[in-house]
Amino acid sequence: MDVASAARAAKKAAIPLAAAAGADKDRMLAAVASALEARAADIAAANAEDLRRAAATALAEPLLKRLRFDAPKIATAVAGVRSLMALPDPVGATLAATELDQGLELYKVSCPIGVIGVIFESRPDALVQISSLCLKSGNAVLLKGGSEAAGTNRILAEVIAAASEAAGAPAGWMQLLETREDVTCMLALEDDIDLIIPRGSNAFVRHIMDHSNIPVLGHADGICHAYVDRAADLDMAVAVVRDSKCQYVAVCNALETLLVHRDIAAAFLPRLQAALTTPPVRLIGCPRTAAIIAVEAAGETTWRTEHLDYTLSVRVVDSLSDAIDHINTYGSRHTDAIITADAAAAATFMDLVDSGNVFWNCSTRFSDGYRYGLGAEVGISTNKIHARGPVGLEGLMIYKWKLFGHGQTVAPYADGRRHFTHRPLAGTPPR
Amino acid sequence: MDVASAARAAKKAAIPLAAAAGADKDRMLAAVASALEARAADIAAANAEDLRRAAATALAEPLLKRLRFDAPKIATAVAGVRSLMALPDPVGATLAATELDQGLELYKVSCPIGVIGVIFESRPDALVQISSLCLKSGNAVLLKGGSEAAGTNRILAEVIAAASEAAGAPAGWMQLLETREDVTCMLALEDDIDLIIPRGSNAFVRHIMDHSNIPVLGHADGICHAYVDRAADLDMAVAVVRDSKCQYVAVCNALETLLVHRDIAAAFLPRLQAALTTPPVRLIGCPRTAAIIAVEAAGETTWRTEHLDYTLSVRVVDSLSDAIDHINTYGSRHTDAIITADAAAAATFMDLVDSGNVFWNCSTRFSDGYRYGLGAEVGISTNKIHARGPVGLEGLMIYKWKLFGHGQTVAPYADGRRHFTHRPLAGTPPR
Repeated sequence: MDVASAARAAKKAAIPLAAAAGADKDRMLAAVASALEARAADIAAANAEDLRRAAATALAEPLLKRLRFDAPKIATAVAGVRSLMALPDPVGATLAATELDQGLELYKVSCPIGVIGVIFESRPDALVQISSLCLKSGNAVLLKGGSEAAGTNRILAEVIAAASEAAGAPAGWMQLLETREDVTCMLALEDDIDLIIPRGSNAFVRHIMDHSNIPVLGHADGICHAYVDRAADLDMAVAVVRDSKCQYVAVCNALETLLVHRDIAAAFLPRLQAALTTPPVRLIGCPRTAAIIAVEAAGETTWRTEHLDYTLSVRVVDSLSDAIDHINTYGSRHTDAIITADAAAAATFMDLVDSGNVFWNCSTRFSDGYRYGLGAEVGISTNKIHARGPVGLEGLMIYKWKLFGHGQTVAPYADGRRHFTHRPLAGTPPR
Repeated sequence: MDVASAARAAKKAAIPLAAAAGADKDRMLAAVASALEARAADIAAANAEDLRRAAATALAEPLLKRLRFDAPKIATAVAGVRSLMALPDPVGATLAATELDQGLELYKVSCPIGVIGVIFESRPDALVQISSLCLKSGNAVLLKGGSEAAGTNRILAEVIAAASEAAGAPAGWMQLLETREDVTCMLALEDDIDLIIPRGSNAFVRHIMDHSNIPVLGHADGICHAYVDRAADLDMAVAVVRDSKCQYVAVCNALETLLVHRDIAAAFLPRLQAALTTPPVRLIGCPRTAAIIAVEAAGETTWRTEHLDYTLSVRVVDSLSDAIDHINTYGSRHTDAIITADAAAAATFMDLVDSGNVFWNCSTRFSDGYRYGLGAEVGISTNKIHARGPVGLEGLMIYKWKLFGHGQTVAPYADGRRHFTHRPLAGTPPR
């Protein structure tokens, strides 16, 4: 099936899926979990074939590790599917209710967005997680995974589609795309696809954002900052900066730029440098940093660079206000932390830094849906609308307004014969 | 000032405005209201000049009526500004709170979106309403009004900016754009403008949506449907359809297409036609409609046409399911109503019609922020994300995550030495 037909089929399936009862969707999830267990050996075999092919192309070891989807990883993915069954149905929640007049009742009710297009990296568990999140939330989904995992993704999509559809899900609710050309085509299908969620490199996500009129949820850059205030506890600052930078360097919430107040720079920077040695962190600094410790000279692009490696940009600033200005100018609205013992400085920082996640005295690496307790994570958004920061199930939801009347017309309200009561209502819509 | 500089200035102003206390913003609104009263004669004089110029160009009477901004209309606008002061501050509300671990507390806190670009029709009261909504919600705003109201808009913008800035609002938080070229330029400023709200003709809004990477909140088409089910009370159906079509034809929530179940078409259509005579409604119908009443023949484009006039498209359908399919195929996700005495049919319709507003036994014309009791209305959205249907103040809001720690790092959680508690918290973030 071509992508346009797949998207039309997904849009058609999205309508009954949006109206599926929570218990029915949980039954579909149970069927998916059981089918994944029953087919675990076949899935592992397909993955072993992907791994053999990837090893032959000399794929780097961390990427091979992400690609691996063996029995323990399958069991973890299945447990993830089952954990969704325990969550309440996100569809059909009454978000607001108002009596407009006697016998004319308005309810704002949560509902799925519709059709989601997801493009994800070479981790087969992402396919299981995303499709089960979409099923739980009543959304249809078009999935495109990394090409290295093509064989694993194909069997996973087959197993999940077949099991869910046998349990009552509408045919076509989830479909796998296979090529880059499919993705290019998908970006133009704004009549049938309601939201694109791209997960991957920043260049890739930026490309998606620039080439589609469909709303995109996600982040391109993760240029995260830590600002060490003059009132910082320096031991704490060393520990938080080291963790933010080094605990896992290849991720979007890792620290990329350190800002240091001038008053404590001479005391702090040598201690920090001494702590960033295993493995050694390459430091790129402004002239005032270079006057205190040995660093490479920062250039024009330093402050806009996401290193994703053991490299840190360092700048000495004159004030809290300059730190905030730097972050709002060069940052990517992802995650930024202040280290200070001054509560007023922290509050100012957290109010004025225009990022989805603003932290006081803790590592930028906490910026994550699992750590936030959101359950499964759809992604991390640097958008300014809809959803921001780590996004859980609620990022796949929107609402509709349901108005229940008894033949009311607008005319008597417009000419003043009747008046709205606008009285808050308790309870749920009539069925 | 050119538009790029204006947008940069607005972005700079948005940062302190986002952190302004509710009481301070209410004081700014009070100053705006008083200044508008004090300058009412000058404003009315500028408007009289706009009206004279418009009359000379033979502007149609309804447009002249919308353009008029005389003493009573100024007083109404001022009352609108003061009514916002009574509303709670939408900024700083705690939307969720979780203890991640002892002494590591996460708060999801409402905040403004940032910089809003609003393009609106030739109603000067829209400028007052939108700028005061933005001020209340802590958003900076770039405004472009209809050219017919240029003189009125200029004095209104001067008065509002001067009064609010004298009361403490950051300079540049609201700015007026004057030309179409300014709008074109604004659409490209995605680094500085976070959301565009266009109000106007559907061709205009469609143009904006197709020519900007900035998220757009609004609606292009309003192709609203009423479906008269076979279980409809026919008197009620006549009254609701007549009100939906005729109460005000030039608006987005007016009825454009009527769907009638085949079983009651022969009884219903002649009665409806007899009721649509003052003024006469032009009917365009499918062949099965034409077999019952005299109508013009529907063509290829009939079902996708927003008449905005005393014209109604009519189609006979075989079933509820066909009615839903028609609406999901040809509709614009705005407002659609079912008239039926069958509660199960109504529930199916309201679940499966993929529109922002789904109504049972009442007029489509109720789809409106004021009638919904939302207070002031930002606009009506047919988007599938962020905000849907009539949008009040909450459409100008988003949130940020604030995490308060005591030096915590991720490493001990990653290696299993510590575990998250993920305990719900009551209360508000520490200050």
